[in-house]
Amino acid sequence: MSEALPVIAILGGTGDLGTGLARRWAQAGYQVIIGSRTADKAETAAADLRGIMNERGIEGVNVQAMENLAAAEAADICAMTVPFAHQQGTLELVKDALKGKILIDVTVPLVPPKVARVQLPEQGSAGQIAQNILGEEVNVVSAFQNVAAHHLQEGQGLNCDVIVCGDKKAARAAVISLVEAAGMRGFHGGSIANSAATEALTSVLIFINKQYGCHAGISITGLED
Amino acid sequence: MSEALPVIAILGGTGDLGTGLARRWAQAGYQVIIGSRTADKAETAAADLRGIMNERGIEGVNVQAMENLAAAEAADICAMTVPFAHQQGTLELVKDALKGKILIDVTVPLVPPKVARVQLPEQGSAGQIAQNILGEEVNVVSAFQNVAAHHLQEGQGLNCDVIVCGDKKAARAAVISLVEAAGMRGFHGGSIANSAATEALTSVLIFINKQYGCHAGISITGLED
Repeated sequence: MSEALPVIAILGGTGDLGTGLARRWAQAGYQVIIGSRTADKAETAAADLRGIMNERGIEGVNVQAMENLAAAEAADICAMTVPFAHQQGTLELVKDALKGKILIDVTVPLVPPKVARVQLPEQGSAGQIAQNILGEEVNVVSAFQNVAAHHLQEGQGLNCDVIVCGDKKAARAAVISLVEAAGMRGFHGGSIANSAATEALTSVLIFINKQYGCHAGISITGLED
Repeated sequence: MSEALPVIAILGGTGDLGTGLARRWAQAGYQVIIGSRTADKAETAAADLRGIMNERGIEGVNVQAMENLAAAEAADICAMTVPFAHQQGTLELVKDALKGKILIDVTVPLVPPKVARVQLPEQGSAGQIAQNILGEEVNVVSAFQNVAAHHLQEGQGLNCDVIVCGDKKAARAAVISLVEAAGMRGFHGGSIANSAATEALTSVLIFINKQYGCHAGISITGLED
């Protein structure tokens, strides 16, 4: 493991998506902090993850557990995997700790119970909401909305591409590196406004999952010409 | 060719996308009518298409040309490939002729000059706008927004899936048959509101095309489980 790798915190990281990302990044040699509203919940998720790594004979993984604010302060780069209803509250809590950092927003603006119906927020997208709340001192980059947690929890190799949206190209490029470290292809998808596309697509994929009995994702085609 | 196949009109069908679809459906044995604002423009496009079919040695194709309203009246099922700025006017023109039929809306709400930026309309999507204008007597089904005209113009075989959105399952299924006849896979994508996802994705694909120098599309993955 290189000392030069950034420390990654996953805020609200105790769910399937958060622990799936944590697992992949830890396995790739990153120091990962699982954040949650309580240290206890975070520690339970981190302990589970260490147990899985142990079972698989993967040694030297570095997974810590903290409350969300402490996690955001300790990390170089943060990802956030919270339900839409908790996005704003979590962001207000960690706002100051994110200054000068990248926030990878994985929030999908699902409105239960009709989660298979696209219902984008007035601001256009959850990614845009995050950028508006955090202001220019934080680079919000949206990603991973179309990856099935089911597949993320499996081993390496995952046939789902990740479209990465954010207003700064360098920030998108940093996130694309983390997408690749997690075993997927990442693509520059344009400004944070374009997060509307990937967020809306999640509801369509939920519909497809119900209709076809699968855990669908997407792949970008037509790259060869 | 079976007499049972529906007659398809492509309103505003003289562009690359419209003639690309016309070519594929004609080749699959459908009677196709290219519609345009003037009969002259429609006839030019139809003549070009017949010429191409001739060159390729494909015989017996049935491609006619009409003004949009006449085309809508003569067809069993209509597709519409007009710029967003002409969507409403075209729909008002053909509204009565569409009653009891399916309209395949291919409209993408691009707002020049920033076509690589998602700018969805207040109503949520162009598909929803069409359904609102046409009312319940017309089944609006949105499709083909993510297919590169460049690839459509080539021969058979096209590595791009088509997400099909509309409020009625039977209407979506009829359109999926036409997607397959055109050489692609079609997927039920949910209600017409979900058209927001495919429409937004078009701007992301335009961004990817510029960034990576390609004509990108999408494929649904993860269907096997």
